[in-house]
Amino acid sequence: MSHLVGNAVVGQAGGPTAVINQSLIGVIQETQKHSHIQRLLGARHGVRGVINEEFYDLMRQPDNMLELVAQTPAAALGATRDKPDEEYCERILNTFKKYDVRYFFYIGGNDSAQTAQIINRLATNAKYDLRVIHIPKTIDNDLLVTDHCPGYGSAAKFVASAFIGDNLDNRALKGVKINILMGRDAGFLTAASILARQRPDDGPHLVYLPERPFGIDRFIKDVEETHNQFGRCLVAISEGIRDDHGIPWAEKVQVMRKEGMERDDFGNVQLSAGAGSLADYLSAEIRGRCRTIRRVRADTFGYLQRSFPGFYSEQDAWEARLVGQMAVSYSLAAEHDGSVALIRLPSTTYAVGTKLVALQEVAPSKPPFTKVLQDEYINSAGNNVLNNFREYVGPLVGDLPKIGWFEQIAQGPLA
Amino acid sequence: MSHLVGNAVVGQAGGPTAVINQSLIGVIQETQKHSHIQRLLGARHGVRGVINEEFYDLMRQPDNMLELVAQTPAAALGATRDKPDEEYCERILNTFKKYDVRYFFYIGGNDSAQTAQIINRLATNAKYDLRVIHIPKTIDNDLLVTDHCPGYGSAAKFVASAFIGDNLDNRALKGVKINILMGRDAGFLTAASILARQRPDDGPHLVYLPERPFGIDRFIKDVEETHNQFGRCLVAISEGIRDDHGIPWAEKVQVMRKEGMERDDFGNVQLSAGAGSLADYLSAEIRGRCRTIRRVRADTFGYLQRSFPGFYSEQDAWEARLVGQMAVSYSLAAEHDGSVALIRLPSTTYAVGTKLVALQEVAPSKPPFTKVLQDEYINSAGNNVLNNFREYVGPLVGDLPKIGWFEQIAQGPLA
Repeated sequence: MSHLVGNAVVGQAGGPTAVINQSLIGVIQETQKHSHIQRLLGARHGVRGVINEEFYDLMRQPDNMLELVAQTPAAALGATRDKPDEEYCERILNTFKKYDVRYFFYIGGNDSAQTAQIINRLATNAKYDLRVIHIPKTIDNDLLVTDHCPGYGSAAKFVASAFIGDNLDNRALKGVKINILMGRDAGFLTAASILARQRPDDGPHLVYLPERPFGIDRFIKDVEETHNQFGRCLVAISEGIRDDHGIPWAEKVQVMRKEGMERDDFGNVQLSAGAGSLADYLSAEIRGRCRTIRRVRADTFGYLQRSFPGFYSEQDAWEARLVGQMAVSYSLAAEHDGSVALIRLPSTTYAVGTKLVALQEVAPSKPPFTKVLQDEYINSAGNNVLNNFREYVGPLVGDLPKIGWFEQIAQGPLA
Repeated sequence: MSHLVGNAVVGQAGGPTAVINQSLIGVIQETQKHSHIQRLLGARHGVRGVINEEFYDLMRQPDNMLELVAQTPAAALGATRDKPDEEYCERILNTFKKYDVRYFFYIGGNDSAQTAQIINRLATNAKYDLRVIHIPKTIDNDLLVTDHCPGYGSAAKFVASAFIGDNLDNRALKGVKINILMGRDAGFLTAASILARQRPDDGPHLVYLPERPFGIDRFIKDVEETHNQFGRCLVAISEGIRDDHGIPWAEKVQVMRKEGMERDDFGNVQLSAGAGSLADYLSAEIRGRCRTIRRVRADTFGYLQRSFPGFYSEQDAWEARLVGQMAVSYSLAAEHDGSVALIRLPSTTYAVGTKLVALQEVAPSKPPFTKVLQDEYINSAGNNVLNNFREYVGPLVGDLPKIGWFEQIAQGPLA
C-alpha cells in the first residue's frame, strides 16, 4: 500500500493536562520513523495557529528537550478554546493546501473531535487527500467510547493525594473542609478522591457529582450528620453540580451574586470562574446555618489538578505517549480517519490496548455527547461513591504517597 | 551536672506543615537516648490533650511507623488553635504535676511560644522544676529571631512548583490568573513564587504582599499593563493584603458580602475563610472593569500548601528533624528554657546551625510580634519581589521540578 506523501500538522486544544505533551512527543517520535511524512509542523495554540500560520518545526527540536517537554505539564504548543465553524475550518483547509499538509493530528477532548470531523468532511468534499486523526485528552474522563482518557489518571492522582493530605489536616484541626474539583458534566475526577480513604473514618465523607441532583438543604443535613458523627467532615464536590432542573449551581450562585457570567466559545459558562463563588457560597451556608460547626473552609484546587509539574501517573504518561504514537501508525495504516481509543483488556491484571474509532462516535451530533460516571459506582443517596470504583481508577492512578499515623496502644491515661 | 529526672510531654499546635512530624520524631528519637526522661507522652491536639489527659505513649510506637510518620504531613498528634490564658495554663501545670512531667516540648508558631512562656512562668512561681522548650514551626516564616522556620521551605517549594505549572498553563491558554496564598502578616510564602521565573516573560508578573498597602485601582492598572504587554498575566497575592489603613482586604470583602466573619481564639479573622471571597472579588473586579480581558481565574491553593503528601523540601525536612532533636539536647544541657532558633552560617555555601533563645524574644509582650519580609526584597512600586530573594529562599526549597519548552528555531512560516 502506498502511503500518502506530504507534511503533517499536530495541534493541542482545550484545557492542558499533565501528560498532554507525552502524546505530542509520541507523534513526533513516530513521525520521524516514516519518510513519507516530510515535515511535522506544530501549530501554535491549536487550530488558531493553523489559520495564523504560526508553527514550530518539530523535526528540528533536539531530543534532550523533547524528553523534558514530554514530562512537562500544559500544552507545549499552546492550546486554544476556539470552536471552529465551517468558515474557520475552510481557512484551516486552505492553510493545509498551502503547506501540502496531508496528516492532521489533533490532541484534545470532544470539542476538538468535532473540529476534526468538520475538517475531515470539508477535505473529503474538496477531494483533498487528508488523514485526520484525533488523539484523546481530558482530565474529566468524559470522552465517549475510550475506556478512559489520557490526562485523567494524573489529575486523579493529584486529587487523591490532595485528599490524603486534607484528610490528615482535617484530623489535626477538626472542622468542615470542602474541596471543589474540576468536572463539568462528569464526576470521574471528583470520584477519584475516594482513593484517599484508608482508615474507616477517613474522608472524603461525602462526594457530590454532576450525575446526581444537588440540593442545599440535603447538603447541610449531610454535613451536620457527618460532623456529629466524626467531629469533622471532608467533602468532595464537582464544580459541575446541578439542581433538580439541571441548572449548574455555579451559575445559580453567580446569578445570586449578580456577577457577569463568563462563557467560552462553546457557550459553556466558565465553571472555573464560578467555582470560587460556589466554594464561597457553600461555606457561607454551612457557617450560617450550622450552629455547632465553628470551622469551615472551601478550596478550589484550580489548575493545580492539571498542571502540577513533576507530578503525574506513570501509567497515564505511558498511555498518553502510546496514543500519540498510535495516531501516527493508524494514519499510515488505515484508509479512514478517526479517534484513538483506549481499550481495557478483560483480565485480572490491568492491561490496555488501542483501536481507531470513527470521529462521529466520539463527537456525535445527538446526545449523549459525553460519558458520565456509571450508576454502579454511586450510592443510592447520591452523596457518595462506592468502593468498587477503586477497581476502575486504581490502575490509572498507580502508587499514591505513603503516610503513617500513631496507634493507641494502651488504654486510658498514662502515668 | 545531674539531670532532671521525670516524664516528658510533646505537643503540636497551630496549622500543620509538611514537616511538623519530622520535629516530633526528632524529639522521640533523641529522648530515647536519655534514661532520665522516663516516658514521653504525646499530647493529643496540643495543650487541649494535656488538660484532657489524652496522650499517646510515644516510646511504644514502632520504628517503622515513626519513620513513615516523619514523612507524613499534618500534625500526627493532632493540633490545636486554643490560646491558653493563665487559668488554662494552671490546668496544664496540674496535669504535669499529676504525671511527674518535667520536660515540655511544644512544636508551633509564635502563639505556642506565648503559651510556653506562661506555663514556664507559672511553673517557676510554683517552684515546680519544669524545662519548657519551644520548637519552631510555621509555613509563613514569620517567627522572630530564627533565620527561617521549619515548614516554610516545603510550603515555598509547593508554591514555586504550583507557579511553574500555572505559568505554563497561562502560556498555553492565555488570560489572567490570580493565586491567593497563605500569609497573614508576612509575604515570605507569596514571595517564594518568584522561583518559578525562568524565561524573561515568565510569571508571576505581579506579587502583592501584606508588607505593602494594596489598592484595587492600582491593582487593576498593573494587571491591564501586564496583560497589554504579554497577552497574559499571572499574579501572586498574600491572603493577608491590607489597605492604606492596615485593614485586611479579606475582611473588607466579607463585610461587603455581609457575611459573618470567623475568628479564632487569638481574635484573628480566619483569613482562609475569606480567601475564597477575596479571590472571587478580585477576579470579578478584573472581569468587570477590564474590557480587553476575557479570561480571569482566581484560585486559593488552600491547605495543599502545607499538607500535600510526598512533597517537601529535603533541606526543610532535615532541619525540622534537627530542631526537634536539639530541643531535647538543650533541655538536658541548659539551665533555662527557650525556643530553638536556626542560624544561617555566613558562608557562600548554605549551612545552618541552631541556638537556644529566650521565649520572650520569640514571643515578646510588645510589637513587633512577627517578622516581615525585608524591604531589600521588595520593589519600590510594592507590586513585585526582587531576584535577590532567591539567595534567601533558594537553599530552603532545594530542587524544583524541571520543565522543557520549544524554541523558535527558524523564522517565519515554514513550508
